[in-house]
Amino acid sequence: MTLTLDKIYHAAHILKTVARKTDLIAAPSLNPESDIYLKTENLQVTGSFKVRGAYYKISQLTAEEKAKGVIASSAGNHAQGVALAAQQSHIPSVICMPDGAPISKVEATKAYGAKVCLVKGAYDDAYDYACKLQKEKGYTFIHPFNDAQVIAGQGTVGLEILDQLPDVEAVLVPVGGGGLISGIAYAIKQLQPECKVYGVQAAGAPSMRDSVEQKQAVTLDSVATFADGIAVKHPGDLTYDLVRKYVDEIVTVTDDEIAAAVLALMERQKLVTEGAGAVSVAAAMYNKVDIKGRKTVCLLSGGNIDVNILSRVITRGLVMAGRNSTLTIELEDKPGQLTGVSEIISRCGGNVVSVSYRQGDTNMAITSCFLHIGMETRDHAQVEQIKQELQTAGFKLASHPA
Amino acid sequence: MTLTLDKIYHAAHILKTVARKTDLIAAPSLNPESDIYLKTENLQVTGSFKVRGAYYKISQLTAEEKAKGVIASSAGNHAQGVALAAQQSHIPSVICMPDGAPISKVEATKAYGAKVCLVKGAYDDAYDYACKLQKEKGYTFIHPFNDAQVIAGQGTVGLEILDQLPDVEAVLVPVGGGGLISGIAYAIKQLQPECKVYGVQAAGAPSMRDSVEQKQAVTLDSVATFADGIAVKHPGDLTYDLVRKYVDEIVTVTDDEIAAAVLALMERQKLVTEGAGAVSVAAAMYNKVDIKGRKTVCLLSGGNIDVNILSRVITRGLVMAGRNSTLTIELEDKPGQLTGVSEIISRCGGNVVSVSYRQGDTNMAITSCFLHIGMETRDHAQVEQIKQELQTAGFKLASHPA
Repeated sequence: MTLTLDKIYHAAHILKTVARKTDLIAAPSLNPESDIYLKTENLQVTGSFKVRGAYYKISQLTAEEKAKGVIASSAGNHAQGVALAAQQSHIPSVICMPDGAPISKVEATKAYGAKVCLVKGAYDDAYDYACKLQKEKGYTFIHPFNDAQVIAGQGTVGLEILDQLPDVEAVLVPVGGGGLISGIAYAIKQLQPECKVYGVQAAGAPSMRDSVEQKQAVTLDSVATFADGIAVKHPGDLTYDLVRKYVDEIVTVTDDEIAAAVLALMERQKLVTEGAGAVSVAAAMYNKVDIKGRKTVCLLSGGNIDVNILSRVITRGLVMAGRNSTLTIELEDKPGQLTGVSEIISRCGGNVVSVSYRQGDTNMAITSCFLHIGMETRDHAQVEQIKQELQTAGFKLASHPA
Repeated sequence: MTLTLDKIYHAAHILKTVARKTDLIAAPSLNPESDIYLKTENLQVTGSFKVRGAYYKISQLTAEEKAKGVIASSAGNHAQGVALAAQQSHIPSVICMPDGAPISKVEATKAYGAKVCLVKGAYDDAYDYACKLQKEKGYTFIHPFNDAQVIAGQGTVGLEILDQLPDVEAVLVPVGGGGLISGIAYAIKQLQPECKVYGVQAAGAPSMRDSVEQKQAVTLDSVATFADGIAVKHPGDLTYDLVRKYVDEIVTVTDDEIAAAVLALMERQKLVTEGAGAVSVAAAMYNKVDIKGRKTVCLLSGGNIDVNILSRVITRGLVMAGRNSTLTIELEDKPGQLTGVSEIISRCGGNVVSVSYRQGDTNMAITSCFLHIGMETRDHAQVEQIKQELQTAGFKLASHPA
């Protein structure tokens, strides 16, 4: 099957009863020089856009294929998308997941009625095992991105954006394997070719960006980012081809920029996103593409983030913004030192939230000790002021946490 | 002015260009025995419903009153609601806030163009100062709840609910001063009297519940809840009267239940809510009212929560669900003890995230020490299993953290 606009319209029709038409929400404060809107696929059923492609793919199977059921391998959003799509289509599904997958994702996938196969090893092992089962049992394999029908399903997001903001000038889309952006870029470039479509990848997993630059689909040796939803080593041949033709540019953002975006979305927009889901906003916040003065849609692709990781992201984001900070001070071990330090912090308006005091490290002078102080602060300028006043008062700041 | 349905329809008309018609989102997993939908006023502009009442109130002022401007006292959502409403109406506003108000709220209020007056003391001092200024300068005071026009504005949420879910059978609404529920209950009982309207208060601030029970508006000596948006000591006479007439029942939820609701909304629905905003969901999750088998709307009134508090709520919610836990073990101070403990935890599937080891407390035997272990766990059953295996192996668990 070749991708056509007809197919995307057809998918939109088929998806009417299954996928939500997620809200488009103005978010002017994320980049005051632009005019930002958020397409909230994190509020889609299953917490990501994946159900769109999976359900449309399944709807196009023959009766015989449907009777045999479908299989997929995934540790994340695709697992839940396929499971729900199969449940809504009243057909059986098997999802192969690496055995280290978070319990919450395994449980969510089971809750949508899928049979979950935990496979020893990493994603590639789960994939291999799914291929083996597929051959043995005659299941249909649902690829997460390199499939024209899956891409047509994801493309329905593009139609909704054009409907919700007809004069949109730029769309920023997270890119992993490239299925989502392929569908969106294809739809938008057919209907409104003057609208720019930008892809955003994590700096630690830039497989599509590198592929486009090197003019061939490349395979990364390794990926390193907390945005696990887009940590893909190799784009599909189909998605590579569509991205090459229809996407204007692909940019990358660092994990620190992603964490700041996740935090900004929580604080200012009251929306929870996973790392992969927030890279579009990170690109907009840090001006990775030229969207000045333009009506811009940032696509939030998903919200399935482990809350323990979310806690760490909040902490990291607060540090990035100078709102949480830690000082390490080398003190002489004599009375009154803690009083001196805390007086200065308090005078500068910092709020102490943790104190630890350590004597007797083997690499220290015998009469000195380290004081670690955690503070809530307003911004980097306030942190700098506190540091300078401490130094002026004769305290010795350690250059890095000891 | 008396509240009428006409006024609420009029407010809906006036608000069209200012307030978002926030999405109604199905949330079946929050209580599988009911049919739950969320009215997402946390995604309203300014992060809460407050802009509705404030803007409608301002729209009804005379040209002379508008020229003089408005004043309000608030440390929270009402401040931002009034500031934005005044900005959109092109009139000046002054907001009196207690000087301990979080910097983020002060900055947000200023960003909407208000003049912020920081008043030494607590909310009551800010209120007194606002009344004084109002008299001196001829500003119009915008009350947060005890005002028929403000109530008419909040009532527009009720019209939207009936439009978005025509066969709704129950609506759960957070109650502080009672402005929001007064408007919603009035609208719903006029149009669809068979739909139940329930109010939810924090157990630490049950002023409206107590007033209804005692058949007169009572004043609490003190309030204690992290849901600061509904920590109100005294309902208004107008809101008390409307609640008495139109609300079916008022129930309360504990801070732990509220924290669990905030966490569930983040994890399952990808929505950030403040404590006050989530009490309706807490009531639904913990079956405080009979909603079994009923189409139920939980109103999320706001999402303006400090992220540092959100971090603590996540932690607390994880503890409540048995997913984070801390053990304190009294050990003999001899080699190999830590190995024994960690082997048992690991065998039971717990994931150790922190360890601290303390000798020499003045109230302990000289040869013993305390080991504190923080773990990520699956549920309470797993925590119990770990505890039992530790005890079977002869380790002594401290009954409470030492």
